[in-house]
Amino acid sequence: MNKKAVILLSGGLDSSTTLYDAVAQGYDCHCLIFDYGQKHKKEIIQAKAVARAAGCKSVVVKISLPWKGSALLDNKISVPRGRALNAKGIPVTYVPARNIIFLSFAASFAEAIGSKTIFIGANAVDYSGYPDCRPEFIRSYQAMLARGLKSSYEGKRIKVVTPLIHLSKAKIVKLAVKLKVPLQLTWSCYNGAAKPCGVCDSCRLRAQGFLQAKIKDSALHER
Amino acid sequence: MNKKAVILLSGGLDSSTTLYDAVAQGYDCHCLIFDYGQKHKKEIIQAKAVARAAGCKSVVVKISLPWKGSALLDNKISVPRGRALNAKGIPVTYVPARNIIFLSFAASFAEAIGSKTIFIGANAVDYSGYPDCRPEFIRSYQAMLARGLKSSYEGKRIKVVTPLIHLSKAKIVKLAVKLKVPLQLTWSCYNGAAKPCGVCDSCRLRAQGFLQAKIKDSALHER
Repeated sequence: MNKKAVILLSGGLDSSTTLYDAVAQGYDCHCLIFDYGQKHKKEIIQAKAVARAAGCKSVVVKISLPWKGSALLDNKISVPRGRALNAKGIPVTYVPARNIIFLSFAASFAEAIGSKTIFIGANAVDYSGYPDCRPEFIRSYQAMLARGLKSSYEGKRIKVVTPLIHLSKAKIVKLAVKLKVPLQLTWSCYNGAAKPCGVCDSCRLRAQGFLQAKIKDSALHER
Repeated sequence: MNKKAVILLSGGLDSSTTLYDAVAQGYDCHCLIFDYGQKHKKEIIQAKAVARAAGCKSVVVKISLPWKGSALLDNKISVPRGRALNAKGIPVTYVPARNIIFLSFAASFAEAIGSKTIFIGANAVDYSGYPDCRPEFIRSYQAMLARGLKSSYEGKRIKVVTPLIHLSKAKIVKLAVKLKVPLQLTWSCYNGAAKPCGVCDSCRLRAQGFLQAKIKDSALHER
């Protein structure tokens, strides 16, 4: 059995837990980290640290999105503070086609190294409402890969695996603790200050998860 | 009607003809050119020249594919010379997931500028056998976008338009002449010498098309 896997790793709680889950399943994990013009480089540094801690190789891909159009890329758009987490609609932190782009590089990487498995920490429960985190999107992406990749025509279909997709944030926190994810190395905050801001969607979803799981977030305490 | 369109432009015969076709249909064309680590930069220079000739804006996106794995990216793999054009299988010039990656950036760009149309010069008749040029791939890509993009949830479905997909190379040549594509500016050769090599798949498919269309290739004569 081919046990090589490509892991999309941002260095946040979800993708780090996904990496540790893949390692626990016995995969030879190749982490893919993106430098896509985020306002801060902190998540790239932390992603590399998490990959190292897991004993896995990582590669950083640099891409430019010259059209901006997201609060995560554009200095003219602020990251919302204290937005209602159950608010309807897709927030301004949405990056146009981000997971579509990330998965396309993962598919290229997987094909180039002969891997048949891509792991992505997409989550459709306690999430920010991004359409590219939903199960129906993941299914259609996999169907598209089956038609567009050379490896599909050679009998090697690439699977997109989403171990967290149906878990609440509290359950992800519990899984992370069980898998011994180095929580102190993970970085979820949309801003890149010395400490997590605590008010962006990502910080607040994380805090809510730890609170509901009744677990102390070591990332906040050890920094 | 929203007439903004994103055009994937490599500067070759097919993508240049696609651009001129979109212009003829009245679209406000935004050309997307990739610097993806090709062995030569000639096609980027020619793509920009074609966009300028058509009176259209263009943007160059720089991406890295650190895993190589194609004769177009890797200096250790030679571009085949004089390969049978009807040979079975996918040639070594295949770049893992190239159109999947290119279309993902096109989708991001289209969303960011509020365009609902992406043009790609994919062709499944006189082509090199790449799976990501076939109609079933394009259809599944569009279906995936409908599930993964924010704009789809706002009632703006993005269409992937392929005006050349069912045309023979000879018919593409005739269409290019009819649309007044500046053939002398287009560059199809996989190699980046002063003149097209004449022996790679791309040169030979082009030459065969001009021969069958009984038209002189001005690109070869004016250089």
